[in-house]
Amino acid sequence: MTSANAPVLECTAMIQQKNITLPPFPRGYHLIDRHIRQEVGTLPEQGILHLFIKHTSAALTINENADPDVRTDFESIFNHVVPENLPFLKHTLEGPDDMPAHIKAAMIGSSITIPITKGQLNLGTWQGIYLCEFRNHGGARKLVATIYS
Amino acid sequence: MTSANAPVLECTAMIQQKNITLPPFPRGYHLIDRHIRQEVGTLPEQGILHLFIKHTSAALTINENADPDVRTDFESIFNHVVPENLPFLKHTLEGPDDMPAHIKAAMIGSSITIPITKGQLNLGTWQGIYLCEFRNHGGARKLVATIYS
Amino acid sequence: MTSANAPVLECTAMIQQKNITLPPFPRGYHLIDRHIRQEVGTLPEQGILHLFIKHTSAALTINENADPDVRTDFESIFNHVVPENLPFLKHTLEGPDDMPAHIKAAMIGSSITIPITKGQLNLGTWQGIYLCEFRNHGGARKLVATIYS
Repeated sequence: MTSANAPVLECTAMIQQKNITLPPFPRGYHLIDRHIRQEVGTLPEQGILHLFIKHTSAALTINENADPDVRTDFESIFNHVVPENLPFLKHTLEGPDDMPAHIKAAMIGSSITIPITKGQLNLGTWQGIYLCEFRNHGGARKLVATIYS
Repeated sequence: MTSANAPVLECTAMIQQKNITLPPFPRGYHLIDRHIRQEVGTLPEQGILHLFIKHTSAALTINENADPDVRTDFESIFNHVVPENLPFLKHTLEGPDDMPAHIKAAMIGSSITIPITKGQLNLGTWQGIYLCEFRNHGGARKLVATIYS
Repeated sequence: MTSANAPVLECTAMIQQKNITLPPFPRGYHLIDRHIRQEVGTLPEQGILHLFIKHTSAALTINENADPDVRTDFESIFNHVVPENLPFLKHTLEGPDDMPAHIKAAMIGSSITIPITKGQLNLGTWQGIYLCEFRNHGGARKLVATIYS
């Protein structure tokens, strides 16, 4: 659109968006850094990556990327805090894992936002990106990645 | 500010902001998609909507927009996880609903960020925007909507 | 880079980023508004401040800035909801405060996003920025501030 002799501009702010479909994961907490990096490709020098999950019984968070026992303990503790089969529940038609899944999703959240610095996700040494799959059979999950730079 | 023969620029990044005041809602979880869409009006082709609530005993989240029992169960389960009248509390002057409200607000969060795609909020089929009103008499709640595009 | 007679442009969108290191805080919930304001300096007229903590056993949130009992009650209630020494845990080598710290971090979250309006953080009257330190000896914590304007 710009003419050949248009001035070079300092303003380079831009938005890029990409749909991501994760493969089905079993109920539990899963590191998805590799999937995300593959999908978003080369990152800008500086900016923000926003990841949004288009579901109400799964969530995204950032937590420890080393000891796999952390992810197993996530499953145990969240099941302890938000147990299945609480006697006062009404929304039970889709199974005992359904309503706790909605609550866990609200507690953990449907999006994460990560700074991008020097062309890399600026995560701490021990931070990884978690898909939190709260359903027994959640299936493939759809994400939207938006990059500001 | 631009002269008549200035080049057409590719860079269209911009920020728009709007204050929103929600009407008072009773204690509980409420779908506010209609309110938000009315207030923000026409959305840009691509970007992000950030909604922020300026209160510490209410929250915003995204969850199931269909069965109203889900919202009733939200109230029951969060009251179960963060009960009123825990005997060790000190901040009790404003009533038994106050301190649990602060904790629920921290668990659920004071803002949500939603991708905008093709001029629409890019929510999943079953996702709606919840106002979580934790106080018995919370009154009107103030939000700030910021749109990046 | 622009020539002397380049047109003045409307587009002023930009991103600024800054690393912040907080001093060590004891386990508990701490108001860090003063630290953040000092570090980010003069804010743009309009935009968003994104604060990200590069750790998995501490978190950032926004909550009441007045009565210090609120912060003490945060410590009591979150210890009640996510107790130490649950018998089924596996990730226990780093001490009984470690695994609960990861869960609290997931519940509260590793980032907050605050609208900037008229050159100020557009927080509600009673809102302050909390560092949530979940470890007994967490040490100095690293944050990344990203400002969109």
